[in-house]
Amino acid sequence: MNHDAPTLAVSTVIFALRANEAQTKDSGETSAATLWLPLVRRIREPFEGRWALPGGPIGASESLGDAAARNLLETTSLTSRYLEQLYAFGTVDRSPSQRVVSIVYWALVRPDEAERATEGENVRWFAADDLPELAFDHNTIVEYALWRLRNKMEYSRIAHAFLGERFTLTQLREVYEAVLRKPLDPANFRRQIESTNSVVATDERLAGGRHRPPRLYRYNESFGLADNGPLPVT
Amino acid sequence: MNHDAPTLAVSTVIFALRANEAQTKDSGETSAATLWLPLVRRIREPFEGRWALPGGPIGASESLGDAAARNLLETTSLTSRYLEQLYAFGTVDRSPSQRVVSIVYWALVRPDEAERATEGENVRWFAADDLPELAFDHNTIVEYALWRLRNKMEYSRIAHAFLGERFTLTQLREVYEAVLRKPLDPANFRRQIESTNSVVATDERLAGGRHRPPRLYRYNESFGLADNGPLPVT
Repeated sequence: MNHDAPTLAVSTVIFALRANEAQTKDSGETSAATLWLPLVRRIREPFEGRWALPGGPIGASESLGDAAARNLLETTSLTSRYLEQLYAFGTVDRSPSQRVVSIVYWALVRPDEAERATEGENVRWFAADDLPELAFDHNTIVEYALWRLRNKMEYSRIAHAFLGERFTLTQLREVYEAVLRKPLDPANFRRQIESTNSVVATDERLAGGRHRPPRLYRYNESFGLADNGPLPVT
Repeated sequence: MNHDAPTLAVSTVIFALRANEAQTKDSGETSAATLWLPLVRRIREPFEGRWALPGGPIGASESLGDAAARNLLETTSLTSRYLEQLYAFGTVDRSPSQRVVSIVYWALVRPDEAERATEGENVRWFAADDLPELAFDHNTIVEYALWRLRNKMEYSRIAHAFLGERFTLTQLREVYEAVLRKPLDPANFRRQIESTNSVVATDERLAGGRHRPPRLYRYNESFGLADNGPLPVT
């Protein structure tokens, strides 16, 4: 046995949007929602007691994507429409006891799905921009995932992964505000989104007792959601 | 020892542009350059005798990026300004004898660098769109790399990785034509590139005896070349 051979693990960053409970609605300073992610408390060394991304070794009959889907299911009891490989982390000293190379996936979860998520004894959800010191290099991994998410908002329809089949432009703007962590001008946002043709207006309006309920939009299905290209989805 | 534990490898797709020797300059049907990549002939089973991407296990003191840079150096004697992680391939049955997960990098090499590349006994360069049947799933990996390259041309300055410090708009267009494998209208191309602000006109012109030598451009340095974001480069 080669003791230098690295161990392989798959870990998964699971992002969900959650409405802020104590927001200052009219100040323009805070957005209506925040990105959250579930972490697992480590029950053994190294880093016993610290919070870490869900993950572990891959099973003999699992693909990498299968292992990531299992991470998501075991941590939250959810499946996700959006599960994508993010990056492989393999610096020499990222684990103190043995060399571990982690292939990291990310899952994006809609608010209605996140509400159904279960929370086991050693699982807790944290605000993505207010994390404690995590095990291993997991703070770096989350920072990288946040950077990729913000970056990808510029050129893909990744924001839609956080929304249902029908949504208002205000709901879509709140996704952008939560990810970019800044308020956006509603009129400018509407113009920009309409110019991309990524969303299509429907004849439906938001249900409820309002005098002028806002129009509902849907995705333009000709734009793909994930971008694995010619690869199989998992 | 866990016999199910996968072995980890790093492989590298090395793309270079090479001028076509027998091109039909005025037909508009073929572009002036083609993407090439070096492959290594396997000298042992499985797939003995087949061509494969350069790669192998990572050294005990190497990061993943270090291993990819070593692949590039050993195969071509080159270093690259552009070396980036592409994707990890880990389906269960991709290697017949044991389970191997390959973390694949890609390197983009400028034509002047490619001219200096050495070619060892078991190394040969192939046109990227005319490959033989390769070992393992390496045809799939090259297809994926080509797809990512084309995709990334749409939203990043990755085309510049194939050019020197100063270049004409014709040279830049030839990169796009080689990667996209279609001729582009010169006037439309000029307008589109100038609208992105990714290149800046210099006061210099192409050296040579022409009556009206074309203007040289440079990169807009405020646009990053690779997109590792907050991660270290390797």
